[in-house]
Amino acid sequence: MSDALAVVMLGVARGHEPRLARFLGIPHRFVGEAAQRQAVDAVISLKFGAAEARSYAPRLLQLPGAGADAVDFASVPPQCTVCNVFEHEVPIAEYGMAAILAHAIGYLPMVRDFSGPAFAQQYAARRPHAEVRGKTLGLVGFGHIGRELARRARAFGMQVQAVTRSGHAADADRSYTPEHLCDMLRTADFVFIACPLTEETRHLIGAAELAVMKPTAVIINVSRGPILEEEALYRALAERRIGGATLDVWYQYPTPTVPGATPSRFPFEQLPNVHCTPHSSGWTEEMFDRRFALIADNLTRLREGRPLLNVIHPARSDQSDH
Amino acid sequence: MSDALAVVMLGVARGHEPRLARFLGIPHRFVGEAAQRQAVDAVISLKFGAAEARSYAPRLLQLPGAGADAVDFASVPPQCTVCNVFEHEVPIAEYGMAAILAHAIGYLPMVRDFSGPAFAQQYAARRPHAEVRGKTLGLVGFGHIGRELARRARAFGMQVQAVTRSGHAADADRSYTPEHLCDMLRTADFVFIACPLTEETRHLIGAAELAVMKPTAVIINVSRGPILEEEALYRALAERRIGGATLDVWYQYPTPTVPGATPSRFPFEQLPNVHCTPHSSGWTEEMFDRRFALIADNLTRLREGRPLLNVIHPARSDQSDH
Repeated sequence: MSDALAVVMLGVARGHEPRLARFLGIPHRFVGEAAQRQAVDAVISLKFGAAEARSYAPRLLQLPGAGADAVDFASVPPQCTVCNVFEHEVPIAEYGMAAILAHAIGYLPMVRDFSGPAFAQQYAARRPHAEVRGKTLGLVGFGHIGRELARRARAFGMQVQAVTRSGHAADADRSYTPEHLCDMLRTADFVFIACPLTEETRHLIGAAELAVMKPTAVIINVSRGPILEEEALYRALAERRIGGATLDVWYQYPTPTVPGATPSRFPFEQLPNVHCTPHSSGWTEEMFDRRFALIADNLTRLREGRPLLNVIHPARSDQSDH
Repeated sequence: MSDALAVVMLGVARGHEPRLARFLGIPHRFVGEAAQRQAVDAVISLKFGAAEARSYAPRLLQLPGAGADAVDFASVPPQCTVCNVFEHEVPIAEYGMAAILAHAIGYLPMVRDFSGPAFAQQYAARRPHAEVRGKTLGLVGFGHIGRELARRARAFGMQVQAVTRSGHAADADRSYTPEHLCDMLRTADFVFIACPLTEETRHLIGAAELAVMKPTAVIINVSRGPILEEEALYRALAERRIGGATLDVWYQYPTPTVPGATPSRFPFEQLPNVHCTPHSSGWTEEMFDRRFALIADNLTRLREGRPLLNVIHPARSDQSDH
């Protein structure tokens, strides 16, 4: 316990060492990635599988994000506790509301097409756009992100509906169990995906679910691409069977073996009513500061033997199981 | 009183006759525009000057919008009451919040630059954007629009400050008199113009006021162009002395004599961080329905001799001065 805490940061966590150090009030050393097995106290990484298990046997696997879909829990050593962090719910709710409003107003084409010389004609030819007041927001999932978005949407006078595992969602105007997903989709003007990717939610929305949506409905995905079935979504958008989409999460990401991966097999970004962004919805300085402040707190707790925060998978030995 | 009410609709009101008729439960006839003087009960027009006064001597001048800056009150006949309508505060508050979020997130360039083939590079090169939570919204004016925007901004955790004539603004975190405008401008991350154009507010914000603003501040104008001094605003934006702008209102509009008017002497739309739209912020079907429902109510009140709604200039004869 008197030694400096040995921490390795992998993948998306890499480069945030100075930020973590700013918040960390205990002796620590950052261990560089290496080929041979190393002794570390904590691994900070979204991904943990057999390869990482061969290199590190940490007491804490600290995810620097919320989703554990890149963790192979069978590879996590028994003495290791797995924790996650949130703190992205604020910027993602802001991004979600920006997307909803942008689609309702038609803000992007309005700005893109504005022309000084053509102004008189454009001014005369203005067509009314939509209001979000009184419209229905359908949330798939009602965790940290869903609740933050719901709070903002209600200030706009939107009706908030949510599908949750339990079928209960405090503060929502109406809630549904997953079996009644289509009942919600039928009535929603905006469908917002805010659930984790699990075996239950993979391809949760495919051709059948898209078919019941309003022809004007806009779908927004900030969670994980494969919750929406890729080809069915592309076809529904390309054939204008739904109104539009904002997609921040994708089907393929760069990996060491496929460093130039394209985001999808389909050119979503070429569809006129689809807004595509590169997994940026939660990507703010403030979010990273809040996350690494919490991670610093967890590393301090690990060193001092105090209960860890945001445990999603407890250690199987007694020692770390506070 | 047994005759049908004679109504003439001019300028931006023209074309809305079917919408008004939908809401109007009393006998009425729409009078076409003509060269010679005509007997009408009501003129529905944003503009009223010497030319209109030569053609019509109405008992009601009903503005189909809020701003009376195109009314020459000296030309309004003494027996005529002038009323306005609002109902644009909801779509304008939605547009305002869309503009604030779009600038904070960088939503437009993010969507515009997204590229499937360049995805891996863009994903790796993501730069954090800004959150609006904790940022300061500075409202110039705190009427219908300012209050609706403030309510939404508070749900995002923004600090709301307002400049009002009285220096009081219920529900704002802080309020200022017009003499202390610069104190507010100094601290605002987003400056939102929501006051009417009057002799006091023309050129309210010029070079001196722009100079005290934060270099990151974004200014949004949905009121009337000339509240912001045209050349000073263009120079501050072109020289990046402020962060950006969303401009929905302009310095020149098409007129019968200048049908091809350009919106400004300066090419605002060519500046990268300026979003220009053609006076569309409040332009929704729902807004027009609410306005013409209220106008139908006022025409019915006029016919039945009941008090008119939204009087901004009472008749100078006893009869209409209910």
